[in-house]
Amino acid sequence: MSAFIRQLASAWAAHDSLVCVGLDPEIERFPKHVAAEPSPIFQFNKAIIDATHDLVCAYKPQFAHYAAYEAEDQLERTIEYVHRHYPQVPVILDAKRGDIGSTAERYAIEAFERYGAEAVTVNPYLGTDALEPFLRHADRGVIVLCRTSNPGGRDLQELDVGGRRLYQVVAQLAAQRWNSRGNCLLVVGATYPEELAAVRAVVGEMPLLVPGVGAQGGDVEKVVKSGQTAAGTGLIVSSSRAILYASAGEDFAQAARAATLALRAEINRHRTRP
Amino acid sequence: MSAFIRQLASAWAAHDSLVCVGLDPEIERFPKHVAAEPSPIFQFNKAIIDATHDLVCAYKPQFAHYAAYEAEDQLERTIEYVHRHYPQVPVILDAKRGDIGSTAERYAIEAFERYGAEAVTVNPYLGTDALEPFLRHADRGVIVLCRTSNPGGRDLQELDVGGRRLYQVVAQLAAQRWNSRGNCLLVVGATYPEELAAVRAVVGEMPLLVPGVGAQGGDVEKVVKSGQTAAGTGLIVSSSRAILYASAGEDFAQAARAATLALRAEINRHRTRP
Repeated sequence: MSAFIRQLASAWAAHDSLVCVGLDPEIERFPKHVAAEPSPIFQFNKAIIDATHDLVCAYKPQFAHYAAYEAEDQLERTIEYVHRHYPQVPVILDAKRGDIGSTAERYAIEAFERYGAEAVTVNPYLGTDALEPFLRHADRGVIVLCRTSNPGGRDLQELDVGGRRLYQVVAQLAAQRWNSRGNCLLVVGATYPEELAAVRAVVGEMPLLVPGVGAQGGDVEKVVKSGQTAAGTGLIVSSSRAILYASAGEDFAQAARAATLALRAEINRHRTRP
Repeated sequence: MSAFIRQLASAWAAHDSLVCVGLDPEIERFPKHVAAEPSPIFQFNKAIIDATHDLVCAYKPQFAHYAAYEAEDQLERTIEYVHRHYPQVPVILDAKRGDIGSTAERYAIEAFERYGAEAVTVNPYLGTDALEPFLRHADRGVIVLCRTSNPGGRDLQELDVGGRRLYQVVAQLAAQRWNSRGNCLLVVGATYPEELAAVRAVVGEMPLLVPGVGAQGGDVEKVVKSGQTAAGTGLIVSSSRAILYASAGEDFAQAARAATLALRAEINRHRTRP
């Protein structure tokens, strides 16, 4: 079992939480007094992290939201801040990387060394040898897209491949080939609970990252009942906008805490307790 | 026809070239006097660009090679340099982005506004709504992965989907749906010339980005004969390491020019001339 999976399991237990807060900064939605500061993204994230660290199993910064602002330095500072102050909470860099072997090695350096993330999201379209440079980092988590939360996900992922759907083929590859070091996970959108159940049936205890509750409309009860393991864990339920922008006022961090508490309680209501 | 496609066609004609130089910096392979400079990546790229600009149809910086060095600023400067000095040559940002709609919009801002690239590579696994935020920029090129040059590409791309291969489904989606603005292209690896011919049969005149000649061993004659259009164009044949690192000495830029000249000549030997 990888160090990332152990850390995740510890956070699930210590914080009694499957909630992951997605750190997707949109400066135009920040409270005015934060937007006016130098390094507003870092300051915003810091306030959110300080207000929620005891309620979550992971943080998940989305790379594009930093790159579009030329704010890679604030992404670095955010991850460093979690490491320094809340080292029990793993950080998932949501970058959905996918490239051939020699280039994938560079992306692994970016995610695991430059940013120091405990896990990274990746795209399976280029196949095994494009994932291997990430998977080789046995202490880190490698979270492969399987069935994404957007409607267009069906264009390829639902295609019939000899009686199975393409996303089911990806789930089987993950379980049978990519998880040899125990550090492979999958992304399955909260908006497709039936597909989540189908993936769970294939992958055993493998943790699943589930975005799409909150702003995207995924149903929490269905997600938990379809996706949890027998132990009532196995899920990283990610919410971004519904937590980050729960209030646009000076109370934004307290409002984020309240929204995180509410999501945690709603999830926990439906969890199996062994 | 998009401004990018027009610019590409002009460069094909003006430079009599289908060659694209991939700008994939590896500082450990730079000549020592360049590696020792401040901003070594920019200085290296500048020398390569000055030595090859009249021989190419495009430049293609690979994002991971900059991100791993924390050198986004040198990527920006490289693209600005091409724009300022050789505005006839388009720049393709090879980033293979793929994410859901609202995040894809951020990646489009990154590629087209922050970096100012004329085109970007993207991943089709998330489907139409994840590509649309890029395609909406009708003046830019959106180059979708179809059949990649690595062996593991077969894991998903060669799967049988009702009598067709998955990469053929992607080619049909590109031709029939994603190219409504005339700004969609595809990536097909030089290492799979039969698949290149199959894609050409589906997509008509659509330009194809073909990496994998040179260090990866793709056969130039097969690539040109399988992939060219009736007009003897339609290809962006990309080579990186075989050109950039043709010499590790002070003559690296002249050696890169010689390697580019040789690749152009080898390609042109097999082109149909209407």
